[in-house]
Amino acid sequence: MLELSDVLEARERVRETSRHTPLTYSHTYSAMTGAEVSLKLENFQRTGAFKIRGATNRIQTLSEAEQAAGVVTASAGNHAQGVALAATRAGVDSKIVMPEHAPIAKVKATRSYGAEVVLSGANYDAAAKRAHEIEHEEGRTYVHAFDDEYVMAGQGTIGLEILEDCPDVDTVIVPIGGGGLIAGIATAIKARKPDTRIVGVQSAGASSVADSLEKGSVVTIDSVDTIADGIATRRVGERTFPIIQEYVDEVVTVTDEQIAMAVVHLLERSKTVVEGAGAVPLAALLFDRFDYEEGEVIVPALCGGNIDLNMLTTVVVRGLVETGRYLKLKTVLKDRPGTLEELLAIISGHQANIYAIQHDRTSRDIGMSDTEVEIDLETRGHDHVEELIEALESNGYAVEVLV
Amino acid sequence: MLELSDVLEARERVRETSRHTPLTYSHTYSAMTGAEVSLKLENFQRTGAFKIRGATNRIQTLSEAEQAAGVVTASAGNHAQGVALAATRAGVDSKIVMPEHAPIAKVKATRSYGAEVVLSGANYDAAAKRAHEIEHEEGRTYVHAFDDEYVMAGQGTIGLEILEDCPDVDTVIVPIGGGGLIAGIATAIKARKPDTRIVGVQSAGASSVADSLEKGSVVTIDSVDTIADGIATRRVGERTFPIIQEYVDEVVTVTDEQIAMAVVHLLERSKTVVEGAGAVPLAALLFDRFDYEEGEVIVPALCGGNIDLNMLTTVVVRGLVETGRYLKLKTVLKDRPGTLEELLAIISGHQANIYAIQHDRTSRDIGMSDTEVEIDLETRGHDHVEELIEALESNGYAVEVLV
Repeated sequence: MLELSDVLEARERVRETSRHTPLTYSHTYSAMTGAEVSLKLENFQRTGAFKIRGATNRIQTLSEAEQAAGVVTASAGNHAQGVALAATRAGVDSKIVMPEHAPIAKVKATRSYGAEVVLSGANYDAAAKRAHEIEHEEGRTYVHAFDDEYVMAGQGTIGLEILEDCPDVDTVIVPIGGGGLIAGIATAIKARKPDTRIVGVQSAGASSVADSLEKGSVVTIDSVDTIADGIATRRVGERTFPIIQEYVDEVVTVTDEQIAMAVVHLLERSKTVVEGAGAVPLAALLFDRFDYEEGEVIVPALCGGNIDLNMLTTVVVRGLVETGRYLKLKTVLKDRPGTLEELLAIISGHQANIYAIQHDRTSRDIGMSDTEVEIDLETRGHDHVEELIEALESNGYAVEVLV
Repeated sequence: MLELSDVLEARERVRETSRHTPLTYSHTYSAMTGAEVSLKLENFQRTGAFKIRGATNRIQTLSEAEQAAGVVTASAGNHAQGVALAATRAGVDSKIVMPEHAPIAKVKATRSYGAEVVLSGANYDAAAKRAHEIEHEEGRTYVHAFDDEYVMAGQGTIGLEILEDCPDVDTVIVPIGGGGLIAGIATAIKARKPDTRIVGVQSAGASSVADSLEKGSVVTIDSVDTIADGIATRRVGERTFPIIQEYVDEVVTVTDEQIAMAVVHLLERSKTVVEGAGAVPLAALLFDRFDYEEGEVIVPALCGGNIDLNMLTTVVVRGLVETGRYLKLKTVLKDRPGTLEELLAIISGHQANIYAIQHDRTSRDIGMSDTEVEIDLETRGHDHVEELIEALESNGYAVEVLV
């Protein structure tokens, strides 16, 4: 099994390619929770995520012959960029297989780090199949995203940094997808400071670890559905699982709504961009998914920042809705001149700004002389939303809140 | 005029309330420009912007009697939060006047830092009038947002930090609104390292300094129009202007599109949230608004991160459009069954995702047998947009690009 010495050796190897990322005390989350919260900002890592640490350690421990033959992997995510930059920095040729419809931004970023990108297959599994073909055809080494001791040891260097920058840490919160990150971090931290608690977090839409721990062996779930694409895995690794069994104290889940709120908090309050998978530790903390004490020193490991801009806008709108700053409602008007104006007068009287209106008199759900109107509004919080809905209802409108 | 000694004294006073913010080397912008670019991340300052430095220095230099009487100011922006927290930390009572329709988020944040918020007036000028009434009625000290030597000296501490963390800096780029920030930074840096170039940046929609410098006195412009609300001022200060004349080497402007692109770059590449006013230095650099040499050591001072989530989504969509990742187009179909399907087949054949469709046959601009359709699409870059438009046109569609 993975040892502290592996992580210490990895540290020397990853020093050149990856950053020692900042650990910052957060007044905001400390005040919100009563704990002493410091954020490990691994979203500031080169390539935007922790994967470069493991990839570097894997590539730098290859033999000269293996390095000369090059590496290959399949990924449409952070692992692609991590392997690409790690290989380039080591002077090793890399091929990354991505599904054919991979976002162009990911393809471009991976190419910019020096990899050859091969587009193949309709999904990740098909891309991985092609990558293993290339492995055998070209004699390249396949760099696994998590189920490899060198990869785990590389990710574990985050644990060393946390202990160095926050020696009195009580609890470290770590996302779990395949388990490579938490296996590495837990190995390092439990060896150095065994009383530190390790809390693992999965997305409720991609949660296999609790069942696996109960059953005592790796459980594969049928499908995944989460905005946290970085941890949207159907199972953890065979090599990471025994380490999770040994060292992880608790495993909890968070919902997509909680993840979205954590992303929005990080944007608004911490001025930092964190992807869904990176925000799950803060979501678990803010939504009390585990118990902690007043003054407990807690470090959520925010493991990546590569969130697509489209996803970012979706998440922000969700965050506005959850905090009562965006309201979409539907109501019915008599279809005669002036009725929309009467409705709008009530809305503007309550200081809500209009984003959009859809006015439709062809809906089949309403009377022939009625017209249906949907309105998107900027509001000022939950109290304001309630006040506005009450005002509309007391004026005789039947209001349906859509989001 | 302001002296280095004032800034050095300020530094001792602001140490307790404000952070020494990080200065980070950027591989991304260095590669994009050929310069050596390090970002001064003042958006990570407490309250999300630099204003707390000046406010702290002003409040801590008040006499005991003045401190006992409290302070007052008018602001709907970063100055409000800066004064609120600075006052609370000094044990001084503060009243902040905001316009009646100030965003609830700003009101809440300012209250959370311990100030009493007074909502008064329809705009900033009316709020400022009320604040001056309170100044006289209650004997409070009015804390000006920029035109005050103690305030300038406080902001100047950023200059000391830049020199300390990047001693070989050649050029510092600083936003100009009222001029307090650049006056402080320039005073500190020109005293310590006179060969450092200071470049000031204004928004093209709120640009009075170039004219003021030409005329030799402060020019007031009639109106402002910019997404960078933090520097949307009609004039610089009477006390800041002579310092700008003396120490600032160049003053340039950037457009709202350039500012939006800089904000998007900072989100996507640097994983950091910067408001419009804070992004103007990077915009000036990336869009070559001034000359620089290969390898020149350049520090853009990103002065704040308090961007409203609604504005953030607007800016992100603008960024997607500018980078060819969002396309809104209009075309005309014969109004018979199947025509929309034919159009959509071309679009999906070219791998563009549909966000939204509006289909309208009541438009007055088109023939009686035609129907107008507007489509919002997710695209993969400028090349993809061109390819798609060519495909539509070669199939006989007249395409109008809306954004």
